[in-house]
Amino acid sequence: MKDLVEKVTSGDVRTVARLIRDVDDGMPEVREALKALYPYTGRAYVIGITGAPGVGKSTLVDQMVAHLRKRGKTVGVLAVDPTSPFSGGAILGDRVRMQRHSMDPGVFIRSLATRGHFGGLTQSTRSAIDILDAMGKDVILVETVGVGQDEVDVVRSAHTTVIVVIPGMGDDIQAIKAGILEVGDIFLINKSDREGTDKTLAELRLMIEMDQRKHDEGLWKPPIIKVEAIFDKGVDDFLAAVDEHARYLEQTAGGLKSRRSPERVRQEMVEMIKARLFEEVLDKLTETGEFDRAVDAIVKGALDPYSACESLVFPALGGLPAEE
Amino acid sequence: MKDLVEKVTSGDVRTVARLIRDVDDGMPEVREALKALYPYTGRAYVIGITGAPGVGKSTLVDQMVAHLRKRGKTVGVLAVDPTSPFSGGAILGDRVRMQRHSMDPGVFIRSLATRGHFGGLTQSTRSAIDILDAMGKDVILVETVGVGQDEVDVVRSAHTTVIVVIPGMGDDIQAIKAGILEVGDIFLINKSDREGTDKTLAELRLMIEMDQRKHDEGLWKPPIIKVEAIFDKGVDDFLAAVDEHARYLEQTAGGLKSRRSPERVRQEMVEMIKARLFEEVLDKLTETGEFDRAVDAIVKGALDPYSACESLVFPALGGLPAEE
Repeated sequence: MKDLVEKVTSGDVRTVARLIRDVDDGMPEVREALKALYPYTGRAYVIGITGAPGVGKSTLVDQMVAHLRKRGKTVGVLAVDPTSPFSGGAILGDRVRMQRHSMDPGVFIRSLATRGHFGGLTQSTRSAIDILDAMGKDVILVETVGVGQDEVDVVRSAHTTVIVVIPGMGDDIQAIKAGILEVGDIFLINKSDREGTDKTLAELRLMIEMDQRKHDEGLWKPPIIKVEAIFDKGVDDFLAAVDEHARYLEQTAGGLKSRRSPERVRQEMVEMIKARLFEEVLDKLTETGEFDRAVDAIVKGALDPYSACESLVFPALGGLPAEE
Repeated sequence: MKDLVEKVTSGDVRTVARLIRDVDDGMPEVREALKALYPYTGRAYVIGITGAPGVGKSTLVDQMVAHLRKRGKTVGVLAVDPTSPFSGGAILGDRVRMQRHSMDPGVFIRSLATRGHFGGLTQSTRSAIDILDAMGKDVILVETVGVGQDEVDVVRSAHTTVIVVIPGMGDDIQAIKAGILEVGDIFLINKSDREGTDKTLAELRLMIEMDQRKHDEGLWKPPIIKVEAIFDKGVDDFLAAVDEHARYLEQTAGGLKSRRSPERVRQEMVEMIKARLFEEVLDKLTETGEFDRAVDAIVKGALDPYSACESLVFPALGGLPAEE
């Protein structure tokens, strides 16, 4: 274990790649490594990037890497992709665009696809962030595909969360925006050469203002930055906004440590406990055949799923009675 | 309880509305009602509708309701909206469009927003489907906002799952499509008067064909239907495709019961057990203050979250030792 810690902290690419793959595959052994690496974490600055499909997140991340490298920062990129529910693989297609950084030893890029291990994607992403952090990367970019609750949870692990939109996405986007509005530290309008940019800007501004009225204890006012990632326009302004947000965190929330605020730790622990409990209990229920018998009874219509659940859960907790 | 069952099965709107609200709010008492109602479920046909923001799902659902009503079917609609992580409310904005059906006693429309109760959105949606099913609705439409894993899980409860796309959504949509491709029974290209429809059609066709080669045991070939929901064009063709899929299920998978196939029941039980375990254990850990002490130690840097998790989980399971 000491050897592994030394390898990771000295930036050994193969060791880190294997560890992240083990996290993604939900290998139980990886937990001991994570415990040992934990004291070496807490140094990296984590930026989460989320937004609907088609807004150009990958292109943006690619440009961010280029700019951060010019500043002399080492960069880790985690592309959090949805898993196909049946085939179980990450979608690596647009990773290809990142190829221009693939020979740069200061850049480490990996995709995560996990679902159903260790508390799912959110937990795996946090563990992978810890590994890249222990590896010594200065900045970690976490890019998610999609705008569901999963993605929101994933980007909440970041110091700075960036919501990427494009002009004229139809009115359903309103609903999504409301759902993610409160997690956005910076809003980025990509493809801002397109028609409708001013309208989108005005809408976002209004939403942010309405939101601030509700939560006036939070003093950070999310800026809205216009970018054309593909032409490398506005990326500097955007990174300046990230710097400003980092300074804000430093002053108000204890800086880099804010990723470990009581609120966040609380939420992380809730998810981790949930996943671990289930893992331990399901192993037992599967071994004894109890789980299969319950499924069978439900399929046959002899049992309802609500009662079945109780008959499995309570004995697993040492025969706790079902009193409510 | 007998009174409640009678009210629900005779279609009492107020009782049903209250039950669904209780499900959404995660009230423990609702479980007893769900157990009692379960024998009255299994009759309704459930159609799941998912797709990225802006593809016009709400308009489509509105037209579907109108067509199904013309056929004499009673309809339940569940609009599954993302919850804002902080303010916790459903986004009901575009529900307004449904107003033309609001006076029709044959239509019952509700939004669900739950997260973090009873296993989250997926579980709440299933329970709400059960309630509308017991209420006697012939067809239940489940509309989700977004295309994340949550939404995929939600629509997997349906007999027929419809993936809605629009022409020209950029190339990130490819990643999403791959993630949801295998759950789609019908693909619908909405706004198909727009430029790029043929390209989208060709892409979808190719993806479906590639997918079928991988899974040739599944013989249903998802059709791709062109619709302009806002002009009520193509909706009949679409519903004919749903009918055809229902016939296919009838012949191959035991028809309506396929919502209770061993595979689906297994997955549902996994989620339900997970949620219930956590609920029972967290209550105890919160009461004794153990959870707060662990959070505190992590925030102070005195404990890593991985070890903290084990120190909380194992005693809760009756002191199971941490052997792996």
